[in-house]
Amino acid sequence: MSELLVYRNGELVPDSQAAISIHDGGFLLGDSVYEAVRTFRFVPFHLEPHLDRLWRSLTYARIDPGMRRQDLHEAVMLTLEANRPLLEDDVWLYIYITRGRFVNNVQYYLPATAEERRPTVIIFCRPLPFAAFARGYEHGVHAVIPPSRHLPPQCLDPKLKTGSRMHLVLAEFEARMVDPEAWSLILDIHGNLTENKSGNVFLVKDGALYTPAADGILAGITRATVLELAGRLGIPAYERTLQAYHALTADEAFFTSTGYCIMPITRINKVVIGDGRPGLITRRLLKAWGETVGVDLMEQARRHLR
Amino acid sequence: MSELLVYRNGELVPDSQAAISIHDGGFLLGDSVYEAVRTFRFVPFHLEPHLDRLWRSLTYARIDPGMRRQDLHEAVMLTLEANRPLLEDDVWLYIYITRGRFVNNVQYYLPATAEERRPTVIIFCRPLPFAAFARGYEHGVHAVIPPSRHLPPQCLDPKLKTGSRMHLVLAEFEARMVDPEAWSLILDIHGNLTENKSGNVFLVKDGALYTPAADGILAGITRATVLELAGRLGIPAYERTLQAYHALTADEAFFTSTGYCIMPITRINKVVIGDGRPGLITRRLLKAWGETVGVDLMEQARRHLR
Amino acid sequence: MSELLVYRNGELVPDSQAAISIHDGGFLLGDSVYEAVRTFRFVPFHLEPHLDRLWRSLTYARIDPGMRRQDLHEAVMLTLEANRPLLEDDVWLYIYITRGRFVNNVQYYLPATAEERRPTVIIFCRPLPFAAFARGYEHGVHAVIPPSRHLPPQCLDPKLKTGSRMHLVLAEFEARMVDPEAWSLILDIHGNLTENKSGNVFLVKDGALYTPAADGILAGITRATVLELAGRLGIPAYERTLQAYHALTADEAFFTSTGYCIMPITRINKVVIGDGRPGLITRRLLKAWGETVGVDLMEQARRHLR
Amino acid sequence: MSELLVYRNGELVPDSQAAISIHDGGFLLGDSVYEAVRTFRFVPFHLEPHLDRLWRSLTYARIDPGMRRQDLHEAVMLTLEANRPLLEDDVWLYIYITRGRFVNNVQYYLPATAEERRPTVIIFCRPLPFAAFARGYEHGVHAVIPPSRHLPPQCLDPKLKTGSRMHLVLAEFEARMVDPEAWSLILDIHGNLTENKSGNVFLVKDGALYTPAADGILAGITRATVLELAGRLGIPAYERTLQAYHALTADEAFFTSTGYCIMPITRINKVVIGDGRPGLITRRLLKAWGETVGVDLMEQARRHLR
Amino acid sequence: MSELLVYRNGELVPDSQAAISIHDGGFLLGDSVYEAVRTFRFVPFHLEPHLDRLWRSLTYARIDPGMRRQDLHEAVMLTLEANRPLLEDDVWLYIYITRGRFVNNVQYYLPATAEERRPTVIIFCRPLPFAAFARGYEHGVHAVIPPSRHLPPQCLDPKLKTGSRMHLVLAEFEARMVDPEAWSLILDIHGNLTENKSGNVFLVKDGALYTPAADGILAGITRATVLELAGRLGIPAYERTLQAYHALTADEAFFTSTGYCIMPITRINKVVIGDGRPGLITRRLLKAWGETVGVDLMEQARRHLR
Amino acid sequence: MSELLVYRNGELVPDSQAAISIHDGGFLLGDSVYEAVRTFRFVPFHLEPHLDRLWRSLTYARIDPGMRRQDLHEAVMLTLEANRPLLEDDVWLYIYITRGRFVNNVQYYLPATAEERRPTVIIFCRPLPFAAFARGYEHGVHAVIPPSRHLPPQCLDPKLKTGSRMHLVLAEFEARMVDPEAWSLILDIHGNLTENKSGNVFLVKDGALYTPAADGILAGITRATVLELAGRLGIPAYERTLQAYHALTADEAFFTSTGYCIMPITRINKVVIGDGRPGLITRRLLKAWGETVGVDLMEQARRHLR
Repeated sequence: MSELLVYRNGELVPDSQAAISIHDGGFLLGDSVYEAVRTFRFVPFHLEPHLDRLWRSLTYARIDPGMRRQDLHEAVMLTLEANRPLLEDDVWLYIYITRGRFVNNVQYYLPATAEERRPTVIIFCRPLPFAAFARGYEHGVHAVIPPSRHLPPQCLDPKLKTGSRMHLVLAEFEARMVDPEAWSLILDIHGNLTENKSGNVFLVKDGALYTPAADGILAGITRATVLELAGRLGIPAYERTLQAYHALTADEAFFTSTGYCIMPITRINKVVIGDGRPGLITRRLLKAWGETVGVDLMEQARRHLR
Repeated sequence: MSELLVYRNGELVPDSQAAISIHDGGFLLGDSVYEAVRTFRFVPFHLEPHLDRLWRSLTYARIDPGMRRQDLHEAVMLTLEANRPLLEDDVWLYIYITRGRFVNNVQYYLPATAEERRPTVIIFCRPLPFAAFARGYEHGVHAVIPPSRHLPPQCLDPKLKTGSRMHLVLAEFEARMVDPEAWSLILDIHGNLTENKSGNVFLVKDGALYTPAADGILAGITRATVLELAGRLGIPAYERTLQAYHALTADEAFFTSTGYCIMPITRINKVVIGDGRPGLITRRLLKAWGETVGVDLMEQARRHLR
Repeated sequence: MSELLVYRNGELVPDSQAAISIHDGGFLLGDSVYEAVRTFRFVPFHLEPHLDRLWRSLTYARIDPGMRRQDLHEAVMLTLEANRPLLEDDVWLYIYITRGRFVNNVQYYLPATAEERRPTVIIFCRPLPFAAFARGYEHGVHAVIPPSRHLPPQCLDPKLKTGSRMHLVLAEFEARMVDPEAWSLILDIHGNLTENKSGNVFLVKDGALYTPAADGILAGITRATVLELAGRLGIPAYERTLQAYHALTADEAFFTSTGYCIMPITRINKVVIGDGRPGLITRRLLKAWGETVGVDLMEQARRHLR
Repeated sequence: MSELLVYRNGELVPDSQAAISIHDGGFLLGDSVYEAVRTFRFVPFHLEPHLDRLWRSLTYARIDPGMRRQDLHEAVMLTLEANRPLLEDDVWLYIYITRGRFVNNVQYYLPATAEERRPTVIIFCRPLPFAAFARGYEHGVHAVIPPSRHLPPQCLDPKLKTGSRMHLVLAEFEARMVDPEAWSLILDIHGNLTENKSGNVFLVKDGALYTPAADGILAGITRATVLELAGRLGIPAYERTLQAYHALTADEAFFTSTGYCIMPITRINKVVIGDGRPGLITRRLLKAWGETVGVDLMEQARRHLR
Repeated sequence: MSELLVYRNGELVPDSQAAISIHDGGFLLGDSVYEAVRTFRFVPFHLEPHLDRLWRSLTYARIDPGMRRQDLHEAVMLTLEANRPLLEDDVWLYIYITRGRFVNNVQYYLPATAEERRPTVIIFCRPLPFAAFARGYEHGVHAVIPPSRHLPPQCLDPKLKTGSRMHLVLAEFEARMVDPEAWSLILDIHGNLTENKSGNVFLVKDGALYTPAADGILAGITRATVLELAGRLGIPAYERTLQAYHALTADEAFFTSTGYCIMPITRINKVVIGDGRPGLITRRLLKAWGETVGVDLMEQARRHLR
Repeated sequence: MSELLVYRNGELVPDSQAAISIHDGGFLLGDSVYEAVRTFRFVPFHLEPHLDRLWRSLTYARIDPGMRRQDLHEAVMLTLEANRPLLEDDVWLYIYITRGRFVNNVQYYLPATAEERRPTVIIFCRPLPFAAFARGYEHGVHAVIPPSRHLPPQCLDPKLKTGSRMHLVLAEFEARMVDPEAWSLILDIHGNLTENKSGNVFLVKDGALYTPAADGILAGITRATVLELAGRLGIPAYERTLQAYHALTADEAFFTSTGYCIMPITRINKVVIGDGRPGLITRRLLKAWGETVGVDLMEQARRHLR
């Protein structure tokens, strides 16, 4: 075995042969839902909340996965185990579910009737970009507010973790106009901070945490974990509407996401945040996270630098 | 040769083997642009305007297709010719272009740098659902306004013909709550009529045509052709904001799309439009269309009814 | 006495003769405010908060009722007593107040000057539809999100309990497109859940209650009572913005209103909520309500079946 | 015969006895549609367009009037004739149609099933307030922009001529805070000029007419007539979005409505428009109107002054 | 010394000679930020929080003041001391900072490059209008909601204390249409209460304080002090969205601002609030404030009445 | 005479001494209106339309300039003549009018009563930055869409030419994050193209001109002149809503403003427009403009390059 294996509708296939039909709605129409889980010491972290959210996505998107949740849980574990021999460090585990191949009908490529349709379920793992994480933990990243706006919930709810994500890709390109290394920090149509393709955002001001309320964002499981951690550490934390003003005048700021967990932000729109280095509370949370999962996040990432 | 052929990055492969990598951004993130062209008498109709729009999509989405427009034109014609022996009647021709395989980086699955990236170009043809067209031409279809709203241009511009279309799929599901045969007719966030997954909408009132202005919609090439036809037939036609009230109180209504060209609407939200049958002006336009392309649309479709 | 009596500007008239002038602004322009109170064991429930709200409506609408609050209180009690002999079970008590007959002036049918105007005050009682309640308590109702949106507060504030309610009637018709038995669950123009013609909405998720904040809704007295009850029962309860996603992925859901108090929702947009039966917390609240008022709500309703 | 007669569901009753049930949805819920027609020389003006609009309202509101359009036309003419002996000058003719008495059901006071329901049709005539018209023609009126906003079409479409009009009544009260004689000129939620309870608005700038486009307003029949008249007189006229800035800096301005036809505006928000007197083009249109209908509007109105 | 002295870029000049160049961006483009501090017993109150906010404004506006915060602090104290001999009672201290003189470039009057630019720093003091305060404390003021709306944060964030304030001046003129003594109470574009040119707003209902959340307003330092005071006095206080309905139906209401601290509102849109006199809780807060700073606010103001 | 002269309230003062009081509302609150006129061959161009607009601004802002329009016209000509000896080439002429010194009152620094107030009128001339123009005419400029949005007309109407312009200054800073030479191209809150601090925007597509409709912009006099020129040259021109998509996919684009008249745009958001050089139609209009005013614009500008 020299190649990662991908779970596809019940079978394990080598990554290089893991492909989907061009007639799959996941490709033609971005008609898919997914989850990205990461491991700590090769154990999936918070797999249950991820499957909870996946099931909410399936319900909302009216996709029948064709399998029970317990079966999917087992398929995830099976995929991880099958790949374990090849894994040198922790990984991402992706689960994608689509409505399957689309049948040609009067309205062109609408999902066929339930009978004709067979959902596509894909599970695969990917190495985490630890070297990049290490640089970010050390220096922080540059967040840039792009001119485009995030989707309103009444259009396509950001709480739905769907594969239709081109708007999020384009927001990254817009942020990179300012700085090729920048990460986007997207506003909603009212000018409130939301999130970006990779995660949620937190601000620190006068010793308290602030993060956008969970309406027009994909309220992350990492975000929830940070709120919990803050509670345990006695750091006051508030979910509320926030604007660019709050971001630019914050004492500290960071993104949260499944992969990197907590990523310090040290510049926003070219304005230096705090003293330009990852903030005290940010680092405290990052450390506390590591203690919780038994992995020193910064140390693990640093090992991958050269 | 017993199977349709698909063009994929320069080669022709049998449809059943035409697949794309699960790491392609077109699958992972709906990060693709596309066009759907149809043939009349096996000749692509208005191919140039479709390629014009495709190039606008590429520009807007900042996707470098890795080939010149002339080359793509030739690839389309080549694909059509290669499949010609198997075609019994006119078909759709789809062109999909993605940014290619995504490279794993700090922000998870963002497009790699230009050097690492190789775009994916797919061209394929599909039979048109003529039997369904025939039923629609005869009886008209039922349009239903779903509760969700179309994307605002400042979020993901509907003028961009992208593969991130789950919002449009969900709008169809919402319309089908009312009637399993219904087609959606989506409002924007201000309550103005826009379009649906399959096409644009026209209303007829007191002998004139009305269609939503080309801001928050994918202003179709079929739509433009209908406006031209109307000019030639002396039917006044206006592009303007329209609301549900205009639709429900119209004398006639129809959708336009590349596949069926013009599809009469005879009910909207269960309200009968006109006398419940395809309207006079609608039928006049459908007939004029056929004369232009030398194909009697209704006759062609009817042949496919058993 | 064989007919219910109606209070009209100081006199009691038989229901069949209780009419108002076609020149009354309440008829011509929906220019009225009202309250609906219900009795438990023939005693008006929470009459004081209802009169508080009525007085807020009068203030906001700039209607002078021509009588003191204490006098209105007495008129309500008088009407109830006068009808008591004919009442077999608890009833609704309605209070409508209009600006009175409109005088014809330059701007057509505007309220005359204060001198010429005499307000109209109507109080009447109506049997409660217990049989329908019983079916709802048992099986739950089907909530459907209509395409139209609720009024923004800056247009006509939903907090004002006015007789101009056609938008709410039309929302019911839209919901019934999906299911003739459905109840509407209306969104505001930003896509947030609000309420419907009959009441407020609550969701249950992970053991906690969620209900839309009291901005763009008529924050009901029943809603307030449920929040109080939840407090007493140790059920966490939050007022916040909620979207369709929250509703479709809730564990339980219910409406609240003066008449039925708490009405389980078991389907939303054809999606089954929880296991498709009235939820545990919903039933617990319904039971606790009954204990508070000394009436077993479900038992009372069931008596009216057949 | 000493009293005006009112048509009510097929019978003619004296005005003082013309009342409707308090259980009629038109009273309880503002659930009605209506039209106001005026006569010139005792002949209804543009009755057909008014009935066209009434039928659009019935369709949109899903109200079945229980009679054919031709029958309603005859009922209007009959009512006018029956009252003719008592009429000293031209009058308004009102037609109100409601869904009838509401039946008590689970959601309180929803329309009963079609079988149980019987619509209410009312037709009556009212003297025109000519004295007030005369003062307005002479001096112009004061328009004031109120703080509240007009209804968005996706909430309750202003194109629907419904009896749920409390928002329009309240806008008048707000305008009168500034001047007890003021008429409101309402903005929509985006700050664009719309209309008011009594009519549409026109501005004159550099010799051309401007009036709000017919999206979020009840595009009046008088408005249409003015646009026609302007065409005949060679005055350029545009339908477009307009804001308070356009109103305050206009050369002339006027309202249009069925009753007064054209009413000059000489002040807006206390700012004098033009030289503070009815403008040249305004007066020209008023004169042309009179010539069309064979009645000198200002002369007719002036006769009613003392 | 017979004239107040003004600090201008490091020097003290007599008030009558304190002028700025017409080429200063603060004049040409309203391109300035500022703070207004007041003294109690000739000591600046809460100077630190004011300088905090000023620094946030400088950061957000990307203005480099050319001096350290500590230097500015000293300049404020110096200016106060220099003027002390002429001060008869407490005063306002204003600090204005602009980007300095604008250089003529291709885009007309854009700020020159950092090298060419020299910021303008102005500090001056002004007598407080105590006589007007005294009348307001006694009788309360009249708040009027103007038709124009406050700026959305994504346009020019109201949290930025900028010299571009014409919208706030115009809102006052609009309020004065209703009453020449009225103060504006501005709504945002969604119809929520915000603030006005002079301060923030609080409502009292059923013994609790309510004030708009700090998103689309300049959350004042006085506002924060009142929230603190309320905490100390055991008065529940909530920051939330509020609409005109809440204001018109409040038990009490007041404005807060640096100058007058707390100003009772006794009428809103001509509607009497409570019993028309400054409310109990309002007066309690005013009294508590005075105790905190050691100055009886009402007594101090009353001394200035004739 | 070695220094330009400035007109200030009736007198001519040397530019270096032309200052305004720090108590002037134009400085304190951006409470001013203004116009910028340019000369061709030392004659003010289109002075009348500029004064028309100034008078509309005064009306809208309720500023009484204290002088008749004819007097202001003369003052402008006088100022130009007085400076003529020192002018080497054409110049800008600025007219600023403020409400004058603000009087301290209860609401802090509100305009005093009409009696106490004396408006400030300033007229001055400035050299045009011809060298920068020359570079722009040759290579085009880079337009960048900033994340902030333009003011909605219901907040502070962009049609009002006010000195409260910090939002426009900040938009330039945001554009410069992408490119220090970039010019902003601002969107409104709905994502439609508007304008920027320096001018209006035009797009060219398929031989026709498109420019945003004159609602949420300061519809420039140069813009009007270009529309006129287009008419004369037979180039179709449309005023309509436009989005970023239109800009990025245009064939040509240019800004218009009083100073440079027409400025080619060759990049937008780093995307090359057309072939990256000033477009054919753009240059044709620039040439036609020059012929109209008798000045070869490019030649005049080029003379100022070293």
